[in-house]
Amino acid sequence: MSVFPTDIELSRAAVKKPIQEIAARLDIPEPAVIPYGRDKAKIDQSFVSSLAGKRDGKLVLVTAISPTPAGEGKTTTTVGLGDGLNAIGKRAIICLREPSLGPCFGQKGGAAGGGRAQVVPMEDINLHFTGDFHAITSAHNLLAAMVDNHIHWGNALGLDSRRIVWRRVCDMNDRALRDIVVSLGGPANGIPRETGFDITVASEIMAIVCLATDMLDLEARLARIVVGYRPDKTAVTAGDLKASDAMAVLLKDAMLPNLVQTLENNPAFVHGGPFANIAHGCNSVVATRTALRLADYVVAEAGFGADLGAEKFFDIKCRKAGLRPDAAVIVATVRAIKMNGGVARSDLGSENVEAVRKGAANLGRHIENVRSFGVPVIVAINHFGTDTAAELEALKTYVARLGVEAVLCRHWAEGSAGILELAEKVAALADSGTADFAPLYSDELPLLEKIETVVKRIYRGRAVTAEPQVLNQLEAFEEQGFGHLPVCLAKTPYSFSTDPRLLGAPENHIVHVREVRLAAGAGFVVAICGDIMTMPGLPRVPAAEHIYLDEQAQIEGLS
Amino acid sequence: MSVFPTDIELSRAAVKKPIQEIAARLDIPEPAVIPYGRDKAKIDQSFVSSLAGKRDGKLVLVTAISPTPAGEGKTTTTVGLGDGLNAIGKRAIICLREPSLGPCFGQKGGAAGGGRAQVVPMEDINLHFTGDFHAITSAHNLLAAMVDNHIHWGNALGLDSRRIVWRRVCDMNDRALRDIVVSLGGPANGIPRETGFDITVASEIMAIVCLATDMLDLEARLARIVVGYRPDKTAVTAGDLKASDAMAVLLKDAMLPNLVQTLENNPAFVHGGPFANIAHGCNSVVATRTALRLADYVVAEAGFGADLGAEKFFDIKCRKAGLRPDAAVIVATVRAIKMNGGVARSDLGSENVEAVRKGAANLGRHIENVRSFGVPVIVAINHFGTDTAAELEALKTYVARLGVEAVLCRHWAEGSAGILELAEKVAALADSGTADFAPLYSDELPLLEKIETVVKRIYRGRAVTAEPQVLNQLEAFEEQGFGHLPVCLAKTPYSFSTDPRLLGAPENHIVHVREVRLAAGAGFVVAICGDIMTMPGLPRVPAAEHIYLDEQAQIEGLS
Repeated sequence: MSVFPTDIELSRAAVKKPIQEIAARLDIPEPAVIPYGRDKAKIDQSFVSSLAGKRDGKLVLVTAISPTPAGEGKTTTTVGLGDGLNAIGKRAIICLREPSLGPCFGQKGGAAGGGRAQVVPMEDINLHFTGDFHAITSAHNLLAAMVDNHIHWGNALGLDSRRIVWRRVCDMNDRALRDIVVSLGGPANGIPRETGFDITVASEIMAIVCLATDMLDLEARLARIVVGYRPDKTAVTAGDLKASDAMAVLLKDAMLPNLVQTLENNPAFVHGGPFANIAHGCNSVVATRTALRLADYVVAEAGFGADLGAEKFFDIKCRKAGLRPDAAVIVATVRAIKMNGGVARSDLGSENVEAVRKGAANLGRHIENVRSFGVPVIVAINHFGTDTAAELEALKTYVARLGVEAVLCRHWAEGSAGILELAEKVAALADSGTADFAPLYSDELPLLEKIETVVKRIYRGRAVTAEPQVLNQLEAFEEQGFGHLPVCLAKTPYSFSTDPRLLGAPENHIVHVREVRLAAGAGFVVAICGDIMTMPGLPRVPAAEHIYLDEQAQIEGLS
Repeated sequence: MSVFPTDIELSRAAVKKPIQEIAARLDIPEPAVIPYGRDKAKIDQSFVSSLAGKRDGKLVLVTAISPTPAGEGKTTTTVGLGDGLNAIGKRAIICLREPSLGPCFGQKGGAAGGGRAQVVPMEDINLHFTGDFHAITSAHNLLAAMVDNHIHWGNALGLDSRRIVWRRVCDMNDRALRDIVVSLGGPANGIPRETGFDITVASEIMAIVCLATDMLDLEARLARIVVGYRPDKTAVTAGDLKASDAMAVLLKDAMLPNLVQTLENNPAFVHGGPFANIAHGCNSVVATRTALRLADYVVAEAGFGADLGAEKFFDIKCRKAGLRPDAAVIVATVRAIKMNGGVARSDLGSENVEAVRKGAANLGRHIENVRSFGVPVIVAINHFGTDTAAELEALKTYVARLGVEAVLCRHWAEGSAGILELAEKVAALADSGTADFAPLYSDELPLLEKIETVVKRIYRGRAVTAEPQVLNQLEAFEEQGFGHLPVCLAKTPYSFSTDPRLLGAPENHIVHVREVRLAAGAGFVVAICGDIMTMPGLPRVPAAEHIYLDEQAQIEGLS
């Protein structure tokens, strides 16, 4: 029996083309390609700007059912679909998010796809890549240092040291930094106060880089960041601290889209990388827009399940950037559907048609949700070797009853050859003109009602609860003129509810909002629901323990 | 009157050659050049390894008098001398350290040289460059996260949470992080304990990257890092935690030397960047060795004044890497000599020959010190427009009495044309065979005596004091088998003493050792003397407040 090669083996065996050649296929001239090694590049700002006014291609969102440890393959399917569209002769670009270092060394692993549907060089993409996340970390922490420094040197702006809301970040899963006291050790070290670190993907700067339309917009957004309040509750911003221009300098290159290629040498923009559970979870507006102007079809992923990633893609990214998605693909696997139907991970190898029927309710809910935004849906069944004919039939039947097509895809094992049918159907759906996109709620709705709308219409919860101070905080944001912003709910990705064990399609649950944070620069209000953390921890046995360089100095253990 | 252009204007006006062309002049073939943009590159590991056994060129150290706010131009003179050697037909490579982000946004500014003696692109070099420091920060903090995670999950290795010695780092001047309490907020966040952050340049990983001879040596050194102790005082290492292999993966690219060019298109390796006040302060062994095998003359700088940078260059880097320097250049300016002679910064514009005579004692002390290592010395007087003929004459006369030559250099204003005489004399001195290098003390000397030797012979102090627990700690290091390591003294760079206001050539002072730290991976014992901090703070008005992008998105305010 032949053993299927690992992701890293496939990645390493890839016959990569020089990145200038990939760019040339998109009519990006060589002087606009800034190389990082031979297989990665950033695209020059002046070329990106020169595309303004060009006709946009079709925008296809790839989203998924609620994630389980069984794996859904959302990134893998995004890459496979891009390869498939190219294989049927369409000019298509893939838009992915950059992976975070933290999970690579923790539990989740990297995010460059898998099997024969990967972007390469996967090691670089999963590690430092072109340095965007490091730049975001630096800009974030420069502002933090300038806040404490300002207070230390006399506090001319009158910041209330008990009301500093700007935390620090690092791109590492480090629970010890969630809740800390700084500036101990005497007067030379500043004024002691409580604060903490979030993971870089949760940084408001990450969201700003992903949502800014150009450098001027970036600078304006950075200046608007609220770092804290005076005793009279008026806000102090990064602009007030004269920090935002230096932050923009640190982020100059991070704003440029990164170009790489798939195993089949098709172009992919891997740019921006917020998590959809604790942030808005979408590839950058700059990358998506650039791709739309260069290609006929752009395949873009959003993070985690459609309740998190797709909702934020529509209500935050598309609303703010004026994007109008033409079609959505919802990725499901028989295994993950079975887990949503109550099967334990260890029992996934046995056929269980009943569990497929039961777990399909999760998929059904996501289909209904995505369609409620006016975007037509198709389901991609990402094939696993253990799937049985009866299970697949049960899943297809369920989906057909909702008036939606489900297409079996074998891109993981076969590359584009395994996903041609989906590619044809997605192109037809996107070209059909049936999309009529509208966000879920209007800008004018009060913030609490926006949260309630997402909870009731998307999560299917019964009610939102919150401590009085959280409600007061929302009112204060409205009084400060931020009532028109959309909301960004931070929540476990594993359930429609805030209880990660409640799989399937739960309803009538209560969603508790623990804390709200204003992201005035990014342009949304974060509502932290249930127990979700903005700084993950490492598991008992971190993946880092098994990552090493082999005798040829090749990386092993990264997945 | 014409205004001399700023550093950033000169840098921007540079006519840069493609970095592949610079490499080709050194016979580095194109496939060994890993481009980062068009003007920066890393050199491939296999090419670096292929040079083993080649005949070494001459090694010239550039060091300086004690630094003052008046400026000495050590990096500027290193670059100028490299350009000068090339101009007189020698094959010369410059070896510099990478600048730290913290000081760029604080007070000191960047470190890419100045005037017509700069390495370019100066903005990139001063900011993220090729990401080496970010990789070091990541590897350092991965280990920190794994330490706290290990304790959180049951502490199988039996670490004493009161005896964790591995701190965290960030590349930012952030005094609030010097002394912190982590893991507050309940059981999910770990075991609360005191710790803190150092600036990245003070990280033991920075020293390891700079001292490791290859990837295998890097891995072995990382595994030896001591992160803390058990209640019975036995050490727990990064290898015990199974963290070091993943750290090596993060550092894979950071180990490759970075190639850039001067304004005159001559090659420079800018690689590694510890501070000489809180660390060993030298360019990487890999870069220096690679340069020695490719060139006839290698001009390498060491940080701050010769009491710190040169001493550590000789006693740590050369001792450990088996390098034998052939000549040393000590950089002085009339202005800095006058400040060492007691003149206030505001009075530097007026002629003061007496102050030159008085302040020259500082230079004299450094000359004597460097010669005590068996390395012949020449003095470079870095010319300023305010220098008077009488002042220059006084300085030259002083130096001549010590049997050393002093050469006036105008490379800042004129580039290589202004430093040809120094270049000729340095080449002759390095070729003269008069060097007979030996480190200051033997490996066998007890640690405390090593510290005393540096204090008495180099700093000219009377005695070393320390609390009993510091002395006990040194004894413990010896019992653990680390007595053979050299010592790395962390001290203010502004004085031979630990009092930064004591300029000139003070003697008979007391040096207090506040703390000692074992750097088992780097291979030295750090002794922290006086009030020196391993995490700087920002000044009242940080440089960041004046750094911005102009209308053409060019960086302004970086110096």
